Amino acid sequence: MSELSLNEHLIGKPGGRWELATPALVLDLDMFERNLAAMAAHCEKAGLGLRPHCKTHKSARIAEQQISHGAVGLCCAKLAEAETLASKGLSAILLTSPVVSPGGLARLAALNAFCDDLIVVVDSEEGAERLDQSAGSAGKIQSVLIDLDVGLHRTGIGPGAPFDSLLQKIGQCANLKFRGVQGYAGHLMHLDSFGDRRTKSLDAMRVLGEARDQAAAQGMQCEIVTGGGTGTYNIDPDAGVLTDLQGGSYVFMDREYNDVPIANNAPMPFETALSVHTTVISNNTKSIVTTDAGLKAFTADAGPPVLQDRAPEGASYFFFGDEQGGISFADKSQTLPLGHVVSCVTPHCDPTVNLYDCYHCVRGDVLVEIWPVDARGKSQ
Amino acid sequence: MSELSLNEHLIGKPGGRWELATPALVLDLDMFERNLAAMAAHCEKAGLGLRPHCKTHKSARIAEQQISHGAVGLCCAKLAEAETLASKGLSAILLTSPVVSPGGLARLAALNAFCDDLIVVVDSEEGAERLDQSAGSAGKIQSVLIDLDVGLHRTGIGPGAPFDSLLQKIGQCANLKFRGVQGYAGHLMHLDSFGDRRTKSLDAMRVLGEARDQAAAQGMQCEIVTGGGTGTYNIDPDAGVLTDLQGGSYVFMDREYNDVPIANNAPMPFETALSVHTTVISNNTKSIVTTDAGLKAFTADAGPPVLQDRAPEGASYFFFGDEQGGISFADKSQTLPLGHVVSCVTPHCDPTVNLYDCYHCVRGDVLVEIWPVDARGKSQ
Repeated sequence: MSELSLNEHLIGKPGGRWELATPALVLDLDMFERNLAAMAAHCEKAGLGLRPHCKTHKSARIAEQQISHGAVGLCCAKLAEAETLASKGLSAILLTSPVVSPGGLARLAALNAFCDDLIVVVDSEEGAERLDQSAGSAGKIQSVLIDLDVGLHRTGIGPGAPFDSLLQKIGQCANLKFRGVQGYAGHLMHLDSFGDRRTKSLDAMRVLGEARDQAAAQGMQCEIVTGGGTGTYNIDPDAGVLTDLQGGSYVFMDREYNDVPIANNAPMPFETALSVHTTVISNNTKSIVTTDAGLKAFTADAGPPVLQDRAPEGASYFFFGDEQGGISFADKSQTLPLGHVVSCVTPHCDPTVNLYDCYHCVRGDVLVEIWPVDARGKSQ
Repeated sequence: MSELSLNEHLIGKPGGRWELATPALVLDLDMFERNLAAMAAHCEKAGLGLRPHCKTHKSARIAEQQISHGAVGLCCAKLAEAETLASKGLSAILLTSPVVSPGGLARLAALNAFCDDLIVVVDSEEGAERLDQSAGSAGKIQSVLIDLDVGLHRTGIGPGAPFDSLLQKIGQCANLKFRGVQGYAGHLMHLDSFGDRRTKSLDAMRVLGEARDQAAAQGMQCEIVTGGGTGTYNIDPDAGVLTDLQGGSYVFMDREYNDVPIANNAPMPFETALSVHTTVISNNTKSIVTTDAGLKAFTADAGPPVLQDRAPEGASYFFFGDEQGGISFADKSQTLPLGHVVSCVTPHCDPTVNLYDCYHCVRGDVLVEIWPVDARGKSQ
């Protein structure tokens, strides 16, 4: 029995949101749509494109809405994610991680043949050679961006001479088409201090801008300069370097991004549209109750979830093993009844979404649609 | 494209194990089969049944093999997990968490009608009343165990008077059949000190034994006294209380259980049959390389994975975001080539398995079969 069939009968029922089989991933469509519109308006005003990252939502339905809000293309983190979205008719995809294994290169070439505009990043001369060879064998030019290491040291070629060598290598590859550069400063997205985040992010953007100029000086114009994320969405445009902004979490938000202030300590303008609903299944112990959402319902890398609706003031959530969570009460005399459903803000939306097969889309208390998480688990 | 179709062409190919699209969950069948046999032999020698917990593997294929190794039945943590296994023809199932919501009770009654021998735990009088009512409406007696709180305070009724009241309540429920008691001391499974673990676990077993005697004194014989786990597998039988041992992780093992010594500081006799394979995708930075397995490939609740095969001595794994991992080298001059595949011991097997759609079953370096993780994500 799928999550869809468990809950499909609740669609349209008043209050049906609180009758879902739990743990359930719930998306508030009103908030979600305002988030889509807010980021689209921000990018339009800033004069740059939006290339939203689908690693957050892994959903063709959501990607389609981002495109209809003016996105210039989509980002995918992994080949299997891109294959899934392409199979749903989405074919302007930037693959933001290098592909280097023989099996991956063969799949990439097949996907490139299938897509209108597939771009992949490359961050090494060896990677460029392998890519050139597989694109040549498949008989279709592969578009590439150079992934530049702007300080995270995770992927990306170093700026300066290493970047220059890679540029020249790509220039010699008959089956690769140079389209521009990517730089992602993932280590800066959640910096507490807005001022610090701003300074460091603009420094990273400067490195990216220098690479763009270095390429132009060699006659290799950057059609695309892409990077940034939700945590620096209102900083990066000021550098005047990006042609488009990546960013994924703004559609949902989570505890981590809710804790990231923007200028003047204001919260981000995006609403917390995503939550997990969970049910109280046991309440025998004083001052705590046990719920049905544990380490298989939330990832634990960013601490416990935060109670959102239908829990008393001051109550907090704790992990209680693989299958269960706990709610502890500030007032020790409090409890919650068996079967009571609460909603929780996810600690970190991306890996938590990856645990679920579908989004339960609500307007107010009504379940209106169920959307699949199409690329769930597609990390290959 | 499913994980199955990504890798099916590698079945039977020499060395194919190291060509899997990664991250991939890999099961060493020789080790796994020895684990199945070792636990079956242990339980037979100890004179008690084995009721293995399927929350670990979520696989009908594995459950079938446990049954053919003599298991007296299966445990499931959640209704959706039980529904999935029952749909594959496995129908002697103990559901180890209470079911209390109206939707859940209706599904439970339907499952009870479908199964030969479905048992569910109950830990409150209100829960018993609700269960009695739904079983009555469905017209089939529901077998129950009382879940006793032996110290974890997660689910379970307290011993003594609360247990006694619940016993009496169940005795009055025309649609419930009392079959026995369950007590799970999850908080003791990973205690570092074997002596401490032994003392506390035997204390918990004593509480369970007293409950059994309390029930017998009221004319309610316990056909089943079930509990224990991998961490106390060689302790609990000594109490002479259990009729059968629960236990899940012994089939796979993980970093956490590998760190739990048994008597005389010997390691557990179970082999680390489960691993995740991951590929080096970038190696531009001195003394580290970047792989394709991050927080969507391993859960982070028990720390980082441990490198197993094909990595240099002294190297260690670290999380590097949602999509990537890192390997850092003890000798700063070391690196690994692009496309190199390493295997990692999972930090905590249960929630990590829940991230994957299938097991890649190997013998030595050969991929021999691919099994689905049937109940992946079935936490409802």
